[in-house]
Amino acid sequence: MDPDTLDSLEWPVRYGRVREESLRRCAGLEVEDHSLQAEVFTSPPKWHLAHTSWFFETFLLKPFDPSWTPPCAAYEQLFNSYYNGIGTPFARERRGLLSRPGLQEVLRYRKAVDEGMAALLDRTDHASGGEILRRCRLGLEHEMQHQELLLTDLKYSLFHNPLFPAIAEAPALAPGTSAAREGWLDQDGGQVEIGATGEAMQAGNFAFDNECPRHAVLLRPFQLAEGLVTNADYQAFVDEGGYERPEFWLSDGWAEISGNRRERPLYWIDREGKALEYTLFGLRERDPAAPVSHLSAYEADAYARFAGARLPTEAEWEHAAALYGGRPTLPACDLHPGADGGQGPRQFYDSCWQWTASAYRPYPGYRVPEGVIGEYNGKFMCNQWVLRGGSCYSPPAQLRPSYRNFFYPADRWQCAGIRLAREA
Amino acid sequence: MDPDTLDSLEWPVRYGRVREESLRRCAGLEVEDHSLQAEVFTSPPKWHLAHTSWFFETFLLKPFDPSWTPPCAAYEQLFNSYYNGIGTPFARERRGLLSRPGLQEVLRYRKAVDEGMAALLDRTDHASGGEILRRCRLGLEHEMQHQELLLTDLKYSLFHNPLFPAIAEAPALAPGTSAAREGWLDQDGGQVEIGATGEAMQAGNFAFDNECPRHAVLLRPFQLAEGLVTNADYQAFVDEGGYERPEFWLSDGWAEISGNRRERPLYWIDREGKALEYTLFGLRERDPAAPVSHLSAYEADAYARFAGARLPTEAEWEHAAALYGGRPTLPACDLHPGADGGQGPRQFYDSCWQWTASAYRPYPGYRVPEGVIGEYNGKFMCNQWVLRGGSCYSPPAQLRPSYRNFFYPADRWQCAGIRLAREA
Amino acid sequence: MDPDTLDSLEWPVRYGRVREESLRRCAGLEVEDHSLQAEVFTSPPKWHLAHTSWFFETFLLKPFDPSWTPPCAAYEQLFNSYYNGIGTPFARERRGLLSRPGLQEVLRYRKAVDEGMAALLDRTDHASGGEILRRCRLGLEHEMQHQELLLTDLKYSLFHNPLFPAIAEAPALAPGTSAAREGWLDQDGGQVEIGATGEAMQAGNFAFDNECPRHAVLLRPFQLAEGLVTNADYQAFVDEGGYERPEFWLSDGWAEISGNRRERPLYWIDREGKALEYTLFGLRERDPAAPVSHLSAYEADAYARFAGARLPTEAEWEHAAALYGGRPTLPACDLHPGADGGQGPRQFYDSCWQWTASAYRPYPGYRVPEGVIGEYNGKFMCNQWVLRGGSCYSPPAQLRPSYRNFFYPADRWQCAGIRLAREA
Amino acid sequence: MDPDTLDSLEWPVRYGRVREESLRRCAGLEVEDHSLQAEVFTSPPKWHLAHTSWFFETFLLKPFDPSWTPPCAAYEQLFNSYYNGIGTPFARERRGLLSRPGLQEVLRYRKAVDEGMAALLDRTDHASGGEILRRCRLGLEHEMQHQELLLTDLKYSLFHNPLFPAIAEAPALAPGTSAAREGWLDQDGGQVEIGATGEAMQAGNFAFDNECPRHAVLLRPFQLAEGLVTNADYQAFVDEGGYERPEFWLSDGWAEISGNRRERPLYWIDREGKALEYTLFGLRERDPAAPVSHLSAYEADAYARFAGARLPTEAEWEHAAALYGGRPTLPACDLHPGADGGQGPRQFYDSCWQWTASAYRPYPGYRVPEGVIGEYNGKFMCNQWVLRGGSCYSPPAQLRPSYRNFFYPADRWQCAGIRLAREA
Repeated sequence: MDPDTLDSLEWPVRYGRVREESLRRCAGLEVEDHSLQAEVFTSPPKWHLAHTSWFFETFLLKPFDPSWTPPCAAYEQLFNSYYNGIGTPFARERRGLLSRPGLQEVLRYRKAVDEGMAALLDRTDHASGGEILRRCRLGLEHEMQHQELLLTDLKYSLFHNPLFPAIAEAPALAPGTSAAREGWLDQDGGQVEIGATGEAMQAGNFAFDNECPRHAVLLRPFQLAEGLVTNADYQAFVDEGGYERPEFWLSDGWAEISGNRRERPLYWIDREGKALEYTLFGLRERDPAAPVSHLSAYEADAYARFAGARLPTEAEWEHAAALYGGRPTLPACDLHPGADGGQGPRQFYDSCWQWTASAYRPYPGYRVPEGVIGEYNGKFMCNQWVLRGGSCYSPPAQLRPSYRNFFYPADRWQCAGIRLAREA
Repeated sequence: MDPDTLDSLEWPVRYGRVREESLRRCAGLEVEDHSLQAEVFTSPPKWHLAHTSWFFETFLLKPFDPSWTPPCAAYEQLFNSYYNGIGTPFARERRGLLSRPGLQEVLRYRKAVDEGMAALLDRTDHASGGEILRRCRLGLEHEMQHQELLLTDLKYSLFHNPLFPAIAEAPALAPGTSAAREGWLDQDGGQVEIGATGEAMQAGNFAFDNECPRHAVLLRPFQLAEGLVTNADYQAFVDEGGYERPEFWLSDGWAEISGNRRERPLYWIDREGKALEYTLFGLRERDPAAPVSHLSAYEADAYARFAGARLPTEAEWEHAAALYGGRPTLPACDLHPGADGGQGPRQFYDSCWQWTASAYRPYPGYRVPEGVIGEYNGKFMCNQWVLRGGSCYSPPAQLRPSYRNFFYPADRWQCAGIRLAREA
Repeated sequence: MDPDTLDSLEWPVRYGRVREESLRRCAGLEVEDHSLQAEVFTSPPKWHLAHTSWFFETFLLKPFDPSWTPPCAAYEQLFNSYYNGIGTPFARERRGLLSRPGLQEVLRYRKAVDEGMAALLDRTDHASGGEILRRCRLGLEHEMQHQELLLTDLKYSLFHNPLFPAIAEAPALAPGTSAAREGWLDQDGGQVEIGATGEAMQAGNFAFDNECPRHAVLLRPFQLAEGLVTNADYQAFVDEGGYERPEFWLSDGWAEISGNRRERPLYWIDREGKALEYTLFGLRERDPAAPVSHLSAYEADAYARFAGARLPTEAEWEHAAALYGGRPTLPACDLHPGADGGQGPRQFYDSCWQWTASAYRPYPGYRVPEGVIGEYNGKFMCNQWVLRGGSCYSPPAQLRPSYRNFFYPADRWQCAGIRLAREA
Repeated sequence: MDPDTLDSLEWPVRYGRVREESLRRCAGLEVEDHSLQAEVFTSPPKWHLAHTSWFFETFLLKPFDPSWTPPCAAYEQLFNSYYNGIGTPFARERRGLLSRPGLQEVLRYRKAVDEGMAALLDRTDHASGGEILRRCRLGLEHEMQHQELLLTDLKYSLFHNPLFPAIAEAPALAPGTSAAREGWLDQDGGQVEIGATGEAMQAGNFAFDNECPRHAVLLRPFQLAEGLVTNADYQAFVDEGGYERPEFWLSDGWAEISGNRRERPLYWIDREGKALEYTLFGLRERDPAAPVSHLSAYEADAYARFAGARLPTEAEWEHAAALYGGRPTLPACDLHPGADGGQGPRQFYDSCWQWTASAYRPYPGYRVPEGVIGEYNGKFMCNQWVLRGGSCYSPPAQLRPSYRNFFYPADRWQCAGIRLAREA
């Protein structure tokens, strides 16, 4: 999906494009793959397909279409993720146990919702037209977020199979490029503005509530790396005892890696003298020039200390990205972050999310939206860390400088890497 | 499968009958059902189908058929249950994560093994003919054991789905019969023999090694109930505070029910004034006259104390069953234990396994068989309790007075009930 | 210890005063009380007494006094809290198992360290005099921090004893005062400065490294409550279903109280119609006018939402405290936060710590100090929340507007309460 | 206490001797040692001192002495071990947190109970005299059982202190004796009787209820080792990879040692090339000729398999001990099992308990005694394994051929070793 065009499309077309993309991402899966859930924090592809439909059913069809007949009353509970305002969600850790409804039944559910939505979007005279379009846009952004999770969750689950399954044929590796982040972007700092403007959550100029309000911050002069830390860079950290030297680690990070015996990034496998990596193309050799990915924030932070640098704050990142980040484009390969032979400021959106040094908290003056939709973001604003940018799994249409992604610092299953910063 | 005929059949026919039965039991399943694993102690149906084939491949085709080409080298690890002599088995708690090989691939694996076995059994001149037949018989008995587990495991996993899925249409409930165990079988005790004779593990007169050697035991005079404890009987225990009164419980049992907040049998559901029960036919009303099932040994033991009786020892049970048990017959309904309107000694094999008071330990003079097959039973002979009889899920062909089933006392997902005993 | 005078005292006197205070706090304890450790996050009083001595031994006597002979080599490991640079600390969760050295032996250890320190501080000609005084001051601040923990840890451990032990006789409750926070302090916001100035960690003008550097922040106009939330206020929250209504809670907070079945503040006990509270004076009636205390950050945050307000940021708090907080004074009663009959801005330092909305992260431009002492604060700067102010357990000499206290948001055993803020 | 004389003593003297012995065992302890509880399965010495007094108070003074005034009402709950009939016991895992009552207070409690008991035993005319003496004897046997636990629990707790504390000065090691079990006792088997006769639980001929009724069993011919397995024997097992070879282990045992990374007996420490062992004399060199001790049943069972033998059943052990075991005598050294230079049948009672192959279940015809005292043994009769004999920590006065000790097979903190058996 070309990020440029989404906003210019008619609503029914726009809706269709996003919904189709979810199915396209499942094209290489076996029926059984759709039910995999290796840990509580991952959800099966089938559940993602159902839950995103549930969102449209719950927040659009049920309130705005009096003729809507729910395909199954139990879905309200089964496919609710975390909205306490809708009722008690089905236990998250058991999503993989929902063999029924089967995949075909879930696809029928999607189809029924799509037909209902088509009819709703066709009605140009609806009294609640503005609210419908606002919610529809939110539903599409929501579905795009789940498109990324669908792949990162599935990757994590498939990784537990010693057959190291592939869901697509691997493209040939580009001829070795040794490009590394060598340059730094100098920033003067001062008082700058970050965040999305007040028209947030309005169709046509979308931003999530957590990007608002736009506000001023004070920045000290700083430098931001032009590119991302590579596998080769990170290998040096491992080779120099990075996982055995507490001086690089935050205390919580040291406890995490000690207690869980971490010795390398999640998907790295060193076997018979070969540096391998699990990818959705199966097990492959690691590309030294590709950005290191699937790190926890602790690993990112420790590497930065090892490299004599630090992680950027989210304000630093956003300010620089607005200047240098360019516009998100389609990644060359959408199932694994690849090497980027380029020079200069790059890799803001198309390789790995970039852990920042910022705790995920509301912006000054943030207000939780009214109603159940207020549960979308507000209640998660603590204990997580902000990531900025985007990854090869992200639908480019939803990336922008002000987008705030967030995960717990120990989380490693997202496609997260490192862009360094340092004092000027 | 008529239990009478198995032994009289030619080997290839016999092999085919048992193998077909495994598939027949999956007839009502969705593809996704085949991958369900709700807890570490359950295995997905697909895994049972693969593992039983692995058994023939590992212990027959690989050692005795030089032309055998394994369909996939990784299966040796993936479908090994617990034979350390074969290598490190794939982690048991992750069997549900093996989306690959998919169901169709596993069915192809079964077919390849069946073809290999057909060829092996056809060769009448094989130098190791005796050993081949002995192992083939063991493989068939092994598969029959898994046929029961396939259903009890699946029942447990499906139970976690709030839709309470059915895998077959329920037969009409028989008109209410109020028959309860009213009579007792008087037994004089004395020195009696139990166990299987020395020809154990020989084709044609099969017994597992754990039933051997046949040996004398001393029994005191005792009484054994003619029938099983019913749902109505057990309801009285619940209604009189059975789960809140420590005086009925073994200390470990009290800890188990307190720590896990048990208040009723596993599949009982009391909802809107109705006494329901989860079955493989879906959620149904409980039949007061049917035997109570899916109890832990602790529940069985506590009920017995409540009823002023005790559980029988395995020797008591076997001695009486040999006299009164009759021959195992096909259960009227093979997916749930039903009421039995009969009188006199009954329900030995066709309703529920019966917890005994006996710890599962080797018989005097027991010797673990040589080689990897010695891991079949010997290493499990501690901490479990013996159950005797059979259930509606058991292939009747493998039931007999000396058969020793065994589970941990806290286990509730097997179809286990209660036959009382008491001092004469 | 009068907070005014500490800085004006000669070093040996100053040292002696602080060290004596640690022992004074143990005056009401039984020998056995000194070994209590109810959870991994609490330490026994004996361990606090030893560890604070270890600090002086490790960072002053060993490096600066060539004549120093360690009383016991094993103490280096046993009483190391978390300094990986010194070696592997003894397992934190087992501190309560160190019956040896006994209390008398630990008191001898303290005495030996005190004598060594007296000699060291007497030498006016020491080449490293500046560093010695800097470290001595750090050691005294460190000991004062442990003086607070000694009491809060002990309170938590004693609470597990159904006898509800007291360590001192309770003063009479002041006659009921119904004063509640009725007023708000209006703040204009704008660009203000917070933090300690650059002379941090210099004797005579002490600040911890985490208070530095002083820097500008932008504040929006806001209001800060004059006083703290009282037991009566919080009781209303409980009575209106506060612990059962997810709409008040952050998602992590809701998980915490649901998973652990929280229904009220840690030390509240409602028994036989009486509203009681465990204190170091034993079990007592709750004073409705006293500030509610021993809350988690989740409870504080939920209460604020219930009250239509929010928690202040640490910058808001510090800016207001510098204007209105006055100077820390001795609390009227030093073992429990009491009601304050006053009016106007109050209770900044002498009742309960006040949870802020700020994640504990380094200030812009913060640099971890060189060497092992750099482990003091830097490595803890993630996942915790900032508390500001001080409590009745805090040595007043170390309180100041810029002081940053920090705990995990689920922590409830500290004397933490609530000062509300809201948008102007 | 000479085992011969206990029964011949007057009741008050007998009572006094046993009670004094408990205090004698605490002679080498620091005050703080009395509160140690390293794991839920150990209890602090102070708790043992209090609980044994609670037993006399609860079962004798409260029911039979109308003038008795309980020193503290809360003790009924605090010092109840597991008698649900008395009320809900204080949480077992928190016994180490009971700093109050302090040791001095507990000693006063003991004294009060002793005075009450002295008065009760003095009254020769009591209407319930028989029952009083029966219960008194039970209380004394109970206290002797706790005398052993007091030391094994304390040893386990002290072991967690890196100072490896001693509670007594070590006697000189006897000059190396290399005696090993070389001989076997041949037993014909047949029908034999085991267990205590019906006068059980009667003063003057004491046996616990779990030793009754005496009954006939059938034994096959077998051989029993004359002596115990030594440290040198067991070292060979370790050296030959015993802990890495699953073929020696029961499945549950293999899971236990794998999951907990066991590599040697609990108290063995191999450090700087020295074979050491933690004892109550502190850390010492292991004596190769001394019996190996502090093994789990899994370790004992695995060693037996390694040695081409097996563990004896409890009936085999008892039958042989009655013939050859002699009478329990005072151990040469009562704080650690020592080498025994002797020949022939030996080490039945004075070194280590001996794991048997028998699950702990009631004897045929066993009946739980009426009333709360029925909780003493009956409810524990499952899932544990029987040990026979006695250890250097056991009061010899309570040892006898029919005594049944029992622990869970994974338990390692008891002084348990191995006497081998094998088929004749």
